[in-house]
Amino acid sequence: MQNIQLKQNERIDDLQIQGFKIIQDLEGFCFGMDSVLLSDFCDLKNNSDVVDLGTGTGIIPLLIWAKNNLNKVYGVEIQREVAEMAERTMKMNGLENNIIIKNIDLKQAPNILGINKFDVVTSNPPYMNYGGGIVNPHDKKAISRHEIKCNLEDVIKSSSRLLKHNGKFFMVHRPHRIVDILCLLRQYKLEPKSIRFVHPQLHSKPNMVLIKSVKAAKPELKFQNPLYVYTDDGTYTDEILKIYRIDGGSKNE
Amino acid sequence: MQNIQLKQNERIDDLQIQGFKIIQDLEGFCFGMDSVLLSDFCDLKNNSDVVDLGTGTGIIPLLIWAKNNLNKVYGVEIQREVAEMAERTMKMNGLENNIIIKNIDLKQAPNILGINKFDVVTSNPPYMNYGGGIVNPHDKKAISRHEIKCNLEDVIKSSSRLLKHNGKFFMVHRPHRIVDILCLLRQYKLEPKSIRFVHPQLHSKPNMVLIKSVKAAKPELKFQNPLYVYTDDGTYTDEILKIYRIDGGSKNE
Repeated sequence: MQNIQLKQNERIDDLQIQGFKIIQDLEGFCFGMDSVLLSDFCDLKNNSDVVDLGTGTGIIPLLIWAKNNLNKVYGVEIQREVAEMAERTMKMNGLENNIIIKNIDLKQAPNILGINKFDVVTSNPPYMNYGGGIVNPHDKKAISRHEIKCNLEDVIKSSSRLLKHNGKFFMVHRPHRIVDILCLLRQYKLEPKSIRFVHPQLHSKPNMVLIKSVKAAKPELKFQNPLYVYTDDGTYTDEILKIYRIDGGSKNE
Repeated sequence: MQNIQLKQNERIDDLQIQGFKIIQDLEGFCFGMDSVLLSDFCDLKNNSDVVDLGTGTGIIPLLIWAKNNLNKVYGVEIQREVAEMAERTMKMNGLENNIIIKNIDLKQAPNILGINKFDVVTSNPPYMNYGGGIVNPHDKKAISRHEIKCNLEDVIKSSSRLLKHNGKFFMVHRPHRIVDILCLLRQYKLEPKSIRFVHPQLHSKPNMVLIKSVKAAKPELKFQNPLYVYTDDGTYTDEILKIYRIDGGSKNE
């Protein structure tokens, strides 16, 4: 592991898997459960070439690299400072030749990285419509949360262009956007094949949705069992504990 | 209550609400929990004019009539024998001037009943794609279950034409058709506004979906809490028992 310079407000967190660590900016957008659940939701074949659109800290590339045998992962991030921080994270983990951070606009990603070329695209995009107003469009957190630099259609369109025939697109998003999501996926030939709703508790409505789409596949959507985060007594469910646990193949257990 | 002639294989069942009874053909399609849950899911304003597309036995018109103060309900049924049986059911209950059974093709319903005229459309349509093959296209049950006489697009298109601006469309269907459903609803200007998934048990994936759409409304989908049918010990949940219970306003309690 290389020596890494931290900037003001930055912190190193241990990901508890393969010994990987991540740099986060405490005044920026820190990764959440959605990225962890998406990484777990992805079923990835060996030697896959992957692009993560809107990679932020690089959390999704790190976790899917730790859990699978991938060929190469590109993490696309439009914010220069955030991309530079993710790049330091990869160097710190000795992964700079495996996970390549690209400081580019995800709308340009297919032109730069290649069209019809990738096996997998992942994305945890900004969830919220951007209507201007109270959101500061230059704020780093706001850019990660709101559709300021890209909208849902940009993410889905770029994913479709990046993917090979039968390539897979995995996304996490908010349930209230599901009409937009499913209609855009179908419009861009990314047929939704598997869906899982994440509920904070047993009797509450879902607050996240995980979707796997396959490029140019025939329509047939399978529902997975709901994923509950907390039990009635406020502790994590066994399934969440299992997802967060260091995986069996870790070198550091 | 009038004297009603029953045909061979027909039976009268008590609906346990307002004293209403229903004739069912034991060799035909008998109503299921989906119609009961849809009737409960509908929030209907007083004096609404309603059309139920593919009404079958007339179960949905009967239940929503019992639970609300409606002006008039039209039940549209393409199968002559089934429509005639539903008509006898309405006479048996003294409702023949309130619930009008129309033995017409639902594709023709807007032309016959009126365009942009109704407050509400309900439907529990055939769930299964019709690919020919093993399905007998003349079988009454098959016509109720498979998209032989109409498909999902026909149901949604007719609903949109029947409804006033801001009119409501309530439908129950299978989750695996959700991409088709949401894309067609939006295509025909019936914006999905509320969705509820029905799960057989707490940890199982949903097997029904209830959707409320509003004609020409702005996009904003609200998820409702999941509805679970059985508890872990195999008995009905309290919520299902409540939905099936005789309602408080019944004249016959």
